[in-house]
Amino acid sequence: MPELRKDPVTEGWVIIATERSKRPSDFKTKPEDIKGSFCPFCNGNEEKTPPEIVAFREPGSKQDQPGWWVRVVPNKFPALRPEALKNMHRNGIYESMDGSGVHEVIIENPTHEASIEELSERQISEIIWAWLNRYQDLKNDKSLRYIQIFKNFGSIAGASLEHVHSQLIGTPMIPTVVRDEIEGAKRYHARTGHCVFCDMIRQETENRERVTSETEMFIAVEPYASRFPFETWILPKQHEPDFGNITEAGVRDLARSLRNALGQLGKALEKPPYNMVLHTSPINDGAAEDYHWHVEILPRLTVVAGFEWGTGFYINPTKPEDAAHYLREAMPPYHIH
Amino acid sequence: MPELRKDPVTEGWVIIATERSKRPSDFKTKPEDIKGSFCPFCNGNEEKTPPEIVAFREPGSKQDQPGWWVRVVPNKFPALRPEALKNMHRNGIYESMDGSGVHEVIIENPTHEASIEELSERQISEIIWAWLNRYQDLKNDKSLRYIQIFKNFGSIAGASLEHVHSQLIGTPMIPTVVRDEIEGAKRYHARTGHCVFCDMIRQETENRERVTSETEMFIAVEPYASRFPFETWILPKQHEPDFGNITEAGVRDLARSLRNALGQLGKALEKPPYNMVLHTSPINDGAAEDYHWHVEILPRLTVVAGFEWGTGFYINPTKPEDAAHYLREAMPPYHIH
Repeated sequence: MPELRKDPVTEGWVIIATERSKRPSDFKTKPEDIKGSFCPFCNGNEEKTPPEIVAFREPGSKQDQPGWWVRVVPNKFPALRPEALKNMHRNGIYESMDGSGVHEVIIENPTHEASIEELSERQISEIIWAWLNRYQDLKNDKSLRYIQIFKNFGSIAGASLEHVHSQLIGTPMIPTVVRDEIEGAKRYHARTGHCVFCDMIRQETENRERVTSETEMFIAVEPYASRFPFETWILPKQHEPDFGNITEAGVRDLARSLRNALGQLGKALEKPPYNMVLHTSPINDGAAEDYHWHVEILPRLTVVAGFEWGTGFYINPTKPEDAAHYLREAMPPYHIH
Repeated sequence: MPELRKDPVTEGWVIIATERSKRPSDFKTKPEDIKGSFCPFCNGNEEKTPPEIVAFREPGSKQDQPGWWVRVVPNKFPALRPEALKNMHRNGIYESMDGSGVHEVIIENPTHEASIEELSERQISEIIWAWLNRYQDLKNDKSLRYIQIFKNFGSIAGASLEHVHSQLIGTPMIPTVVRDEIEGAKRYHARTGHCVFCDMIRQETENRERVTSETEMFIAVEPYASRFPFETWILPKQHEPDFGNITEAGVRDLARSLRNALGQLGKALEKPPYNMVLHTSPINDGAAEDYHWHVEILPRLTVVAGFEWGTGFYINPTKPEDAAHYLREAMPPYHIH
């Protein structure tokens, strides 16, 4: 069973999940090439995954059979498990908790496409609907405090399968990174009476040098203090803490915005590896009203090394203004507002 | 000139240093193989680095000439620069600062050895003396708040040259990671009246299952909430916030401890890539009395992916107890206490 351990100094949590690999010999080989081998996510191979949780499928098609266009399944090697208990353990100065939570995979398309931006806006909308479906369902799980939707693209970014997919992990505590953002937003609100993300959007919209695309309801920017070259954030222009409140028109517009942002990155940098994370208000804890949900796309072009691990400060060799310029030149966004 | 930019949400800092690479085309090539090419750090190639800041060398040998056994030079592509001003800039909601600081390279041996654990204890002591020499000198620089000594080994861990070396970056603000550790230590002290690191050492010494080696003055452990497989910390057994107060015997003993820890990792995992960071009390700000300086060795065997970036929680596939067992089996430590 996975185990959650608390760092006694920083009080941050670590998930010890030994089911993926454990012995030193498992680390000696180079990362596998994820291309070419048999794909359990492809149409027709449904029996190779655990039974589906939900799928959007043609009328008359059967569960765990072809006929779907987006399919959600439990992760075969979960970092957290829903059946686990939530016991706390204490041993001297150390505390741990049973690794309770959920870990799901969203298979984004039945064919073995390699990247989301090659899909149609309609298909990307369907992926967002799948995220939303799982998010709304899991919000009712009283043992969870946060639902992290994310995507790893390319083996350097941690993808172990090439077939286009995203993931969702529900955790029993609020993530450190989200808590830091919420606390920062609260401090800013206390100081100014405004939402820091709304103020950021206002200034970026006026200034435009870091804006890479804009749709009716979303704006994509290279953030002022980008940690990574070509880091891109997509923010709803209207203040909203909770991704769960997105409208039908919002889903369609987010699909456009994602296609713009990932299309630009794909063109400018020849399909770079990236991580994508969706940051939203915690659940079962009262929404964080000063927060503002958004998507962060983090291309993996540089190595995070000793200085970054030691300090938490990032060294970025590319100005976000330059990155934004290159991205706009690489591909004029569709549906610019 | 490098620029320090403050994230308006979290208030963390990012260093924008465009001198290393900047255009999208710079990112399209795979990381270079760091073996084989001409080495500016080798004995006889002293003119290929900026002039040395300090070197330990044979009597009668000349500056920037052979005859040295440890040599410290400015980084040719610095993340921060000593000559920079320290002006603050404000633009709407954004704040930045001139990239003032220092960035130095410690060349750890004149011959092209690939790893520190193959050096003698005496030579490792000399490297620590070089760290200490620079640390004591830079402590007097009133513009600095922290001195981060670190090492990247292997290209996956961010090393751009194979020749055995470490680095030092002096920053004008206290790093987020160090501040979080200090605040955690303060909270623990307020609650218990003890140093959390001292309590950790006490419990690990009794329990022993996570101890990988021990010398007279240092203990090496796989921390209870290890973020990475085979993460190893070396801590002075006696409470001390400031690395700068290490004694002559302490330097010798730390050399032993480093040789044990890196030797074990090298044997068990066939010279894995790793980052090493030295965490100590900030400078020019009053020492943080509840802090406890230590060395963290972070092997780079797993990919930090979307979940980790999104949450700040780490998924570790190897129990620290198992890692400690493998390390002790791979190489019984020298000079065990």
